[in-house]
Parts: sequence; structure tokens; C-alpha cells
Amino acid sequence: MKTYLDCIPCFFKQALEAARIAGASQKIQKRILDKIAIAIRKFPLSSSPPEMGQIIYGLVRRETGNADPYVKIKAKSNKLALRIYSRLKKKVNYSRHKLLTALELAVAGNIIDYGVKNSLDVDKELKKILSEENKAIRKEGKNIFNYPEFRRALKNAGTILYLADNAGETVFDRVLIEEIKRIDKNKKIIYAVKEKPVINDALIEDARQCGIDKVAQIISSGLDAPGTILRLCSKKFLKIFKKADMIISKGQGNFEALSNVSRPIFFLFMAKCPVVARDVGCNLGDIILLHSPKR
Amino acid sequence: MKTYLDCIPCFFKQALEAARIAGASQKIQKRILDKIAIAIRKFPLSSSPPEMGQIIYGLVRRETGNADPYVKIKAKSNKLALRIYSRLKKKVNYSRHKLLTALELAVAGNIIDYGVKNSLDVDKELKKILSEENKAIRKEGKNIFNYPEFRRALKNAGTILYLADNAGETVFDRVLIEEIKRIDKNKKIIYAVKEKPVINDALIEDARQCGIDKVAQIISSGLDAPGTILRLCSKKFLKIFKKADMIISKGQGNFEALSNVSRPIFFLFMAKCPVVARDVGCNLGDIILLHSPKR
Repeated sequence: MKTYLDCIPCFFKQALEAARIAGASQKIQKRILDKIAIAIRKFPLSSSPPEMGQIIYGLVRRETGNADPYVKIKAKSNKLALRIYSRLKKKVNYSRHKLLTALELAVAGNIIDYGVKNSLDVDKELKKILSEENKAIRKEGKNIFNYPEFRRALKNAGTILYLADNAGETVFDRVLIEEIKRIDKNKKIIYAVKEKPVINDALIEDARQCGIDKVAQIISSGLDAPGTILRLCSKKFLKIFKKADMIISKGQGNFEALSNVSRPIFFLFMAKCPVVARDVGCNLGDIILLHSPKR
Repeated sequence: MKTYLDCIPCFFKQALEAARIAGASQKIQKRILDKIAIAIRKFPLSSSPPEMGQIIYGLVRRETGNADPYVKIKAKSNKLALRIYSRLKKKVNYSRHKLLTALELAVAGNIIDYGVKNSLDVDKELKKILSEENKAIRKEGKNIFNYPEFRRALKNAGTILYLADNAGETVFDRVLIEEIKRIDKNKKIIYAVKEKPVINDALIEDARQCGIDKVAQIISSGLDAPGTILRLCSKKFLKIFKKADMIISKGQGNFEALSNVSRPIFFLFMAKCPVVARDVGCNLGDIILLHSPKR
């Protein structure tokens, strides 16, 4: 997805929020915004928004000297998500459509704002997301949810590359991966996280902490951007990306970075911003499972 | 009110919206955002947001060659508001607290988005605003609504300067002015509008079209900014501003520009943005009647 003009005000908003989370003084906050203003003028709109994201969050780290501003938020998210792991498992086990429920949970994990929620809220929120999602899927045709294609691709896939998004969400990803492995224990699953801190995106330690190492091989994409920008990824990652039979891509950032790439990708995310929703052709707030070659 | 860092993303958003309303191409929209980026870096945060507003809307006019991008929206607002004038009068006439109702209507006129509403919607919206407002006032102490001070100041005022905000809203202002004149026909009321087009702010022709000339003297402040920035006002206006016994100031823009000025001003507006709400010390969406010397 290219960068739209509507992304520009949002870049400043994100930079300000990140600067504050990193503990920047008013003066440093202003300096960051001024530097974003310079960067914006040079930024080609043909690039995807995560490319600007990389600039923004890199700038915030350098200007504040805070190498990982979201470290506490990530730790809290992991902890809270791990606490509800057994409840998530029960939801899948008691479901008549286990894979579908696991997929829905994987999106739910992306939606929940762990930063401000307690365990009880998360459970309540899960219920809401799951029921709305079920409703949405039933209204087939209105929502983009390529579940039959997903099942088919999954059946034939030997190696699956799973592109992670946020910390905490990794626990929900684990539940989906475990369900995929339950169906066929011979599937090889590679779970790719970011190389360096960017926003609350999962790193290798987050994936390990959430137990992904028990069910998949964990690798880093080599990135410090909030989306898989291929030209910046490591050679090792790119080799896997090109060879995998199926790619499960979590979150908006990965969609923005990869929407024009010709590979068997299934984008799993909620359209949280109006620009992405317009680009996809869905409504704001829709939960999307989009098979890329369809575009 | 000073400019907060949170205003910066919003400046870009406003510029983009105005550029589109002015019919700018994608290329010109981008050029406007790039020029705002340059202006932002030089803009002192000690200035009030309407000072940046003047830069933004001036830039949009110059870059698009469209001297009055909101002219159609203003015409539509005037027309629609005039259509419900008699209904507004009835609301005041049938009210047990005529002045209070007229004040509430004057805020309501600021809230309604005429651009997208039809006459029926406006009536529905009015009902909602009036009932919520009444409720809000009843919860005295929670909302800032200095009505007793307003009544007192009004009683003693010979000359009242009324600072207008948007087109359309002028009809609602007329209803309030007529109520003030009904109480005491000897009050001298001067209604100040903008000199040149800026957003949908009322100009002399809007005030005349809405019949203000029948109840007040219409003047221009000499401005093309979305708020009364005193250092840019005409000498004629400043003379009246300094001598008036009471000033009724409509809308957020005028509050932002005049909140630190020591004059007997009553600010009448809805706190539409979180930054203003925080500055005032109220909740987002609160309807405010604020007597300035209290600050």
C-alpha cells in the first residue's frame, strides 16, 4: 500500500505519542516533530507507511536515548496474554470450528489494547470480538474473510511462514499455530519477529516468553520497522519468504508493507484506520482474512 | 491559549481538509502540506492556534487560487438556518427561561454541521442539544456555565460587542440578540465578523443575509484568521473592543485567541477538541459559558 496524504497528520500524531511514551521533554517532543516535518517533505508517497514508521520510531529512539520505549508495555502484554492462555485453549477446544476460532482469536490478540486492560477486561473484550466476528463471517460476502481459501492453502502447505505483529498477541498466535499443528503435526512453521525494538512489536524474547519456541522455529526478519519492508529484510529471512508454501501475515503494518507483493500471503488483521479500510475496500473495524493473489 | 504540541498533527489534518474543499489536486495538496511543514518549524508555540490557522487557510487560498473555498457551504448554512428561524423564535417565546434558551440556541448554532444536514436533521439535532444542555446546566458545578454572571453583566452593559463565528450560526446569534433587545431595547449591540474569507467564518454579507443588520451594527474585525487575534485587528475594531461594557465571544477559535485577554468577555462555545477541553478544565463536548476574569 502506498502512503496516502491522510497518513501525514497521523505520522505526526504517532511521533508525538511515541515521544511521550519514551519520556521525551516538551522540547525534545517539538524537536522530533520538527525533524519529522523535514523527513515528510523528502518522503516519496509511493513508499508504504511502515517505511515512514521506521523513520519515526528510529528518530524517537535516537532523540530520547531510549532504545526500547515500549519495553514495559510489551512485558505487561506478554504477562496478561499468558495469564489467559488456558482460557484461549478452552475456547478452541470447545469450538465446533476449531481452526476458525483459532483464527478469530489470532485477530483478537491484535485488537486488544493490553496496555490499559486488566485480565477481566480482556476476557470481556474477547467475548465481544468473537461474537461480532462470528456474525461478520456469517454475513459472507460483506466482509473479506477468505476462510475456504485459507483452509485449502493450509492443507497443501509444507512450510508456513508466520509474520508476527505485537507482543502479547504472540500468545494468541501460539494458539493458532498449535491448532495448525494439531491438524497436521508435520507442518513446518517459522515465526518471524522484528530484529530491533519498534513500537510494541514482538522481538525474539517476546516470542520465547510466550512459548512460541515450543511450536515453531523463531527467526528475526532483520527489521526495525513496523511492517515487513522486504528491501530491508535479512537475506536469511528473504530466502524463507520466497520459499514458504504459505505466509500468514498479522496486523495492519505487514499488510501495508506487503499488499503489493506477489506471494501466497494471507493477511489477517482488523482495519483500524480509514485509509487502510479504503485501500482494502472494507469498512473501518472490519476483521479481514485476505488472500493476496485475489487483489 | 497557547499552541500545544497536539495541535500540530491537527494543523496538517485541517490543511488537508481545506485543500480538498478548495479543489486542490493531489500534487497541490502535497505542496500545501510541505509548506505547512516549513511553517510549523518556525511557528512559536506561545502563539495561539488561530495564528497558525491564518497561515494554513491563507496558504490554501494562495496555492489553490480559490479565494473563498467555503463560499457554497456558507451559503447553504445561511439558507438552512434562515429556514428554521421561526422555529428558533418559537422555542425562545415558549420557554420559561427565554434568555437561557436563546443562549443555548446560540451554542447549538455553532455545533450543527449545516454542510451535511437537511432541515429535518437540524431540528432533531437542536432538540438533542437543548435537552442535553439543560441537563448539563442543571448539574451546576460540573459544567462551566456562568449564567448568573452573564445575566448580571448584561443588565449593566450599555454597549455589547458580539464576536461572530460561522455563517449559518449568525441566524442563531440573531435570536439571542433579539432576546437581549427584547429585555432592554436600549442596548447597543455591535456584531463583529471577519474581514476576509477564512474557513466558514461569517463575513459582512453573511450577517446581512441572516438579518443581523435589523438588530445590530455590523462591523468587520479586519481579520482573515479563524479567531480574534488582537494584534491583527483593525484600529476601528480595537477601539470598540476596548470600550465595550461586555463582549460575547462565540466559538472555540475566539476562545483560543482571547482566553488570556483581560476584558469582560463571555466565551460561549462547545469544547470540540481535547486540547481546548484540557485548557479550559472541562470535558470534551461540554457546552461552556465562561466569564473570562474568572480565569
